Amino acid sequence: MINRAYLSEFLGTAILLATVIGSGIMGETLSPNNTAIALLGNTIATGAILYVIITIFGPISGAHFNPVVTIAFLINREISKWDSLMYVCLQVLGAILGVWVAHLMFDLQVIQISLKIRTGPSQGFSEAIATFGLILVIFGGQRFQKKSVPALVGLYITAAYWFTASTSFANPAVTIARSLSNTFAGINPANVCLFILCQIVGMIIAVKISKILYFSD
Amino acid sequence: MINRAYLSEFLGTAILLATVIGSGIMGETLSPNNTAIALLGNTIATGAILYVIITIFGPISGAHFNPVVTIAFLINREISKWDSLMYVCLQVLGAILGVWVAHLMFDLQVIQISLKIRTGPSQGFSEAIATFGLILVIFGGQRFQKKSVPALVGLYITAAYWFTASTSFANPAVTIARSLSNTFAGINPANVCLFILCQIVGMIIAVKISKILYFSD
Amino acid sequence: MINRAYLSEFLGTAILLATVIGSGIMGETLSPNNTAIALLGNTIATGAILYVIITIFGPISGAHFNPVVTIAFLINREISKWDSLMYVCLQVLGAILGVWVAHLMFDLQVIQISLKIRTGPSQGFSEAIATFGLILVIFGGQRFQKKSVPALVGLYITAAYWFTASTSFANPAVTIARSLSNTFAGINPANVCLFILCQIVGMIIAVKISKILYFSD
Amino acid sequence: MINRAYLSEFLGTAILLATVIGSGIMGETLSPNNTAIALLGNTIATGAILYVIITIFGPISGAHFNPVVTIAFLINREISKWDSLMYVCLQVLGAILGVWVAHLMFDLQVIQISLKIRTGPSQGFSEAIATFGLILVIFGGQRFQKKSVPALVGLYITAAYWFTASTSFANPAVTIARSLSNTFAGINPANVCLFILCQIVGMIIAVKISKILYFSD
Repeated sequence: MINRAYLSEFLGTAILLATVIGSGIMGETLSPNNTAIALLGNTIATGAILYVIITIFGPISGAHFNPVVTIAFLINREISKWDSLMYVCLQVLGAILGVWVAHLMFDLQVIQISLKIRTGPSQGFSEAIATFGLILVIFGGQRFQKKSVPALVGLYITAAYWFTASTSFANPAVTIARSLSNTFAGINPANVCLFILCQIVGMIIAVKISKILYFSD
Repeated sequence: MINRAYLSEFLGTAILLATVIGSGIMGETLSPNNTAIALLGNTIATGAILYVIITIFGPISGAHFNPVVTIAFLINREISKWDSLMYVCLQVLGAILGVWVAHLMFDLQVIQISLKIRTGPSQGFSEAIATFGLILVIFGGQRFQKKSVPALVGLYITAAYWFTASTSFANPAVTIARSLSNTFAGINPANVCLFILCQIVGMIIAVKISKILYFSD
Repeated sequence: MINRAYLSEFLGTAILLATVIGSGIMGETLSPNNTAIALLGNTIATGAILYVIITIFGPISGAHFNPVVTIAFLINREISKWDSLMYVCLQVLGAILGVWVAHLMFDLQVIQISLKIRTGPSQGFSEAIATFGLILVIFGGQRFQKKSVPALVGLYITAAYWFTASTSFANPAVTIARSLSNTFAGINPANVCLFILCQIVGMIIAVKISKILYFSD
Repeated sequence: MINRAYLSEFLGTAILLATVIGSGIMGETLSPNNTAIALLGNTIATGAILYVIITIFGPISGAHFNPVVTIAFLINREISKWDSLMYVCLQVLGAILGVWVAHLMFDLQVIQISLKIRTGPSQGFSEAIATFGLILVIFGGQRFQKKSVPALVGLYITAAYWFTASTSFANPAVTIARSLSNTFAGINPANVCLFILCQIVGMIIAVKISKILYFSD
């Protein structure tokens, strides 16, 4: 028998990545000389699909689609160790599938490695800030207005694509998968470690500050 | 006496196509050298009108506006055979009327045939994925949060215009009607069959996966 | 003593026009060579402000801000003759004030006459369709989901700016006021009559079809 | 022990400014030759983050993030003198922190002074109108539909970025902080006084008109 929550994490992360990569390719193809317009299309598509997949998959698996979100819930003991391990694995696998689906849709070679360098302290700092904000937003939404979480995450990422220098990956599964696409949204595999490390740092700080902000009296 | 549900499907699909074609013409006219901007206008208009027509026509006819949606409901026995036949016919007729209204509004020849070639495996795969996602989203919304269906469909199509290489027709009535417009959103009649076939395949897979995801215990 | 409903119609229409004209000037100034981008800014600002003013002024005056909306309610006997007359006058005066405020904000001559020609059958047809859709949307929202009317109108106009050749004035007060601004959103006074006539035709057809669609059994 | 409301005002205003400044830098960098596109990205990011931070911090501190909002509540006796003083100080400090975070993320010098001249009567008038509208919207939302305040403020500012010549600072803390960034969203320190003065004037008029519109019978 299939575990519906696991299927939901796998499928949802695949749809997320197909959107991130696909809309990046579309934007870059249609607007090669003005990447602001490409980023605009990339942003709108990503924000919109986040609202959609969190709404329809949330009731099944919680709609994490993001290892640092799963780990943050693990720290708060809202998910078991086993489930969180399975979630993280399926998120990474789903993300990679999503990238490959996007390549197939745009008639590109399926297996790619990104050459786009994204490194340096300001990129790392951007990722820490982006992930800090994401976790703060999710915990705040969960605390005060559960029904708004899909809109909150969609709109937070909409903003974060623009206000961070790294365009806010804020998600280790997304980061790994994007290293497998030499397109608009790609990242060189050599830079993946820095990104994930900074995402974890941002998440841990957010978990601590959330406790003070949302749960102390 | 007029059947209100039939009128709703006819009128709603006409408004949808007038929007898809009209906003495509507007975008192409105002931004001939950057089709990313044209697609952005096309996307925003289509997403917005979907929210509107599903909200106001949903309580009357279910607001399908799409033969594969009607067939998916037929498979799940939520609509009668006769009604589904009538729906599909009126969706196609409404869609064609919408195209002609758009041509009249922009002072173009009413009767046109599109010359835009949209074919190949990656275009077909795009349509299968786009329709798979659309049906998954509609069934997920119906299962967990009926009130959000207008926003879910509007935002899903907003994303899908950008993440698929075909800009997500995902609708046989739309596909047929768009073959009658030699403008931004057109498709050569010779490519219509492939699109519709792939849309049906995507729909059938979505119906099966929806059963596992949303209704198994 | 001040009649709050009258003040609401006056102030709301003024804010609407300040937004329509102001955002048009901003778009044209920042993107003189790509009017699609100017229209995008104009669209987003107008759609956003419609949601805002209908939400905050709706409970006070019904938030018509549009003579054909007021007349449609008069036909359905939901407003008195005297109030509808006052509404229409205050909508026109508010609209003109809004135009002048926009000119002052952008350091332009306050009193202007538009030279932009907007005429011909396809422009008139566009206005009839745009207004038909607007009234259909308002009555549908009122019938099935009153709370969504601000979003419905905002998103309908967002779409209609793009899918009609006239960019959807759909409002006689807006049309008159826009003839007093020789900027992006202007219209030559000689073309105002055709626009208003077609808006009234579209409204009357919408009132009739709304009866069949929303209120027959 | 930490005062959660103070932390909320400090953190929220920091996130707001990181978004305003960061997305401005992103837009300017990616679209140096078309500032309309830069403003579009800046607008979407700012509107989106306002919805987010008002939703998650509103239940903690009221989510003012703006000294004139705090003063308007003080005038209406909905906040104590001491709290309003603390709010204003923390808003200014948070805003400055946000600017510096944005500079760090984009690898720019942290300490900057803006050279961008924004002055003259039409700029001042723009700020008065922008702030007048903001306060009217907040009080209207509070009176009739508290749950919509995050969307109302986000969408109002979305519109106001485009319909005012000053792009709507409408916030003294934002104005002071933006004088410390020589980027897209900056303002020369010499022009800060005029902006804040006009913001206060707009706020006072809005407080008076709100009384008539929303609370008289």
